[in-house]
Amino acid sequence: MRVPMDGLPERVTIYEVGPRDGLQNEKAVVPVAAKAEFVARLVRAGLRTVETTSFVHPKWVPQLADAEELLAVLPREPGVRYPVLVPNERGLDRALAHGVTEIAVFGAATETFARRNLNRTVDESLAMFAPVVARARAEGLWVRAYVSMACGDPWEGDVPIEQVVSVATRMMDLGCSQLCLGDTIGVGTPGQVTALIEALGAAGVAPSDLGVHFHDTYGQALANTLAALRAGVTTVDASTGGIGGCPYAESATGNLPTEDLVWMLDGLGVETGADLSELVATSTWMASVLGRPSPSRVVQALAKEPS
Amino acid sequence: MRVPMDGLPERVTIYEVGPRDGLQNEKAVVPVAAKAEFVARLVRAGLRTVETTSFVHPKWVPQLADAEELLAVLPREPGVRYPVLVPNERGLDRALAHGVTEIAVFGAATETFARRNLNRTVDESLAMFAPVVARARAEGLWVRAYVSMACGDPWEGDVPIEQVVSVATRMMDLGCSQLCLGDTIGVGTPGQVTALIEALGAAGVAPSDLGVHFHDTYGQALANTLAALRAGVTTVDASTGGIGGCPYAESATGNLPTEDLVWMLDGLGVETGADLSELVATSTWMASVLGRPSPSRVVQALAKEPS
Repeated sequence: MRVPMDGLPERVTIYEVGPRDGLQNEKAVVPVAAKAEFVARLVRAGLRTVETTSFVHPKWVPQLADAEELLAVLPREPGVRYPVLVPNERGLDRALAHGVTEIAVFGAATETFARRNLNRTVDESLAMFAPVVARARAEGLWVRAYVSMACGDPWEGDVPIEQVVSVATRMMDLGCSQLCLGDTIGVGTPGQVTALIEALGAAGVAPSDLGVHFHDTYGQALANTLAALRAGVTTVDASTGGIGGCPYAESATGNLPTEDLVWMLDGLGVETGADLSELVATSTWMASVLGRPSPSRVVQALAKEPS
Repeated sequence: MRVPMDGLPERVTIYEVGPRDGLQNEKAVVPVAAKAEFVARLVRAGLRTVETTSFVHPKWVPQLADAEELLAVLPREPGVRYPVLVPNERGLDRALAHGVTEIAVFGAATETFARRNLNRTVDESLAMFAPVVARARAEGLWVRAYVSMACGDPWEGDVPIEQVVSVATRMMDLGCSQLCLGDTIGVGTPGQVTALIEALGAAGVAPSDLGVHFHDTYGQALANTLAALRAGVTTVDASTGGIGGCPYAESATGNLPTEDLVWMLDGLGVETGADLSELVATSTWMASVLGRPSPSRVVQALAKEPS
C-alpha cells in the first residue's frame, strides 16, 4: 500500500554498493564474469549508480584484484554511473586509463581507523587525497568522498559530531562532488544521524550533497535512513541482498539491503526507479554464487529458487 | 552515543510478547520451567509488561496448552504486568481463576483473517468479545484489544485505513483499555503507520491509548516504530531475540526484536528501563532452548556463549 509521509523527498537515488562494499569482504574470489553479470543485473533492475570495483592495492582487497579485467568486460549503459574506489594517485591513473568517469576516495573520521585502514593520520590521508581529487576534477570526473566511522569507531567508541564535520568539510574543501557518511560499524541511531546532517548543513555541506551509508549490524540501518531522508538527504547507499561488510572491523556485518530500502520507499511512494522483483532475483542468484543465503528480510520473504 | 531527536516521547513502555507471540509458533513444546525462567529473566532485565501466555484452546496453540501450569509456578514481581491472551468467556473464566489482572483479546481487521483465525465474521468476533470485555472490566481487569492485519492481509492484500479504524473503534467502544495495531505480516511502511495513527486519533482513539506491534518480515519494523513514536505512540511491542510469528500466516516471521528496539531507544535517550546486556543474555539462553540462533541483529552482534 502506498502512503506518502510528510517531509520526504519525491525521489531518492540509490547508490548501490554491492559489487564493491558487498563483495570486498568475501574470502572466495568471485569470477570476473559473475561480477560483470552482477553489475549488469543491477542496472537491468533499474539502479542508476553502481559502485563497481576498487583500485585499492590487491594485497589489501584480493577480491577486487580483477578491477581492470572487470572494467574491460563490463558493458556500460547510458545514464548509469559506475564509480570506482580510488585510494591514491596510482589508483587514479588506473581509473583514468580505463575510462572511469566517477571515483570515490575513502577517508576516516577517526585517527585509529585512518591508521588501520590507510596507514596514515587523518591529516596525512587528506594530504594524500588532495592531488587525487584535484587531478580527477581537472579531468572532469565526479568525486565522492567517504567518511567512514562517522557514527562510532570500534576502537575509539563514540565519535564526536564536530570531529566528523571537521574531516567532512576538509574533504569537501578539496573539491569533492559528494560526501558520504559511513556508519561503518552500524552503531548509529536516528537522533545522531539527524544531528550529524544538521551540523554538516550548518558547516556548509547541504543535505543534497550528502549520501548516507548504513550497515545493519545493530538493525538500525532503515530507521537511520528514514531519519536521513527527513533531514533532506536524497542519496542512500545500499547493497543488493545486504551482502558486505568491512574487512578491517570484525563486528561490521552487511550493508542496508537494497531490497529492504526499496520496500520502504515503494510503500512511501518515493521514486527510485528500482524493480524489487528483479533485485530479489539478483540476490537469489548471488546467494547461489556466494553459497549462503541473503541476510535481507525482503529477500528471505520473497525469494524463490535461484534464477 | 546518546543523541535525542525532536518529537519523541521521553519514555516508552515496551510490551514484551516473546513468551506468547514469540513461542506460540514453536513446534517443539518448551518445558513450563523454561517458560517461567524466560518470563522471570525478562522481568529481571527491566521489562515491566510481559505478555505471558494464552488461554486459546490448546488444540489451536499446543505450545501454550500449559498456561495454567505456567501461571501456577510463575513468580510475580510487584509493578509488573503479566497480561494473558483470552479469546472468549471460557478463557476469561480460566484467567480469573488464576488471578490474572490483565488480559488481551485478539480481533482482526479483515473478514478473511477473522474467518481463518477466529472462525467468525468480524461482526461475530466483536459480539464474542463484548461480554468478555464487559465482565473483565467489571472485575477491574486491564484489557488490551489487538487488531491484527492492520497494515495488510496475506489473502486480501491492502487493508484500507478506514476499515482498520472501524474495527478498532468498535473494539474500544466495548470498553477496552488499550488498542494494539498489529502488522501481523510485516508489510507496512512508515507513511501508512503514521496515517493510521492519525486516522485513529481523528476517530477518538488517542496515540496514548495505542500500542504498535510490528513484525520484521520485510525489515520495516524499526522504521515503522520510529514513525509511530513520532506520531505520539508510547507503547511498543517487541519480542526478546526477535522470536515468533503467526501460526496462521505462513509469511509472517519474527516480531521486532526487543534488543534492536532498545538499541535505538538507548541511542535516542528514550527511557525504557530495559538492560540490553541482560536481554541479549536471555536471548542467547533461549536460542539454546529453541536450538537455533536469534534473528535479532543486536543479539547476533553482541551475543557470546549461552549463559
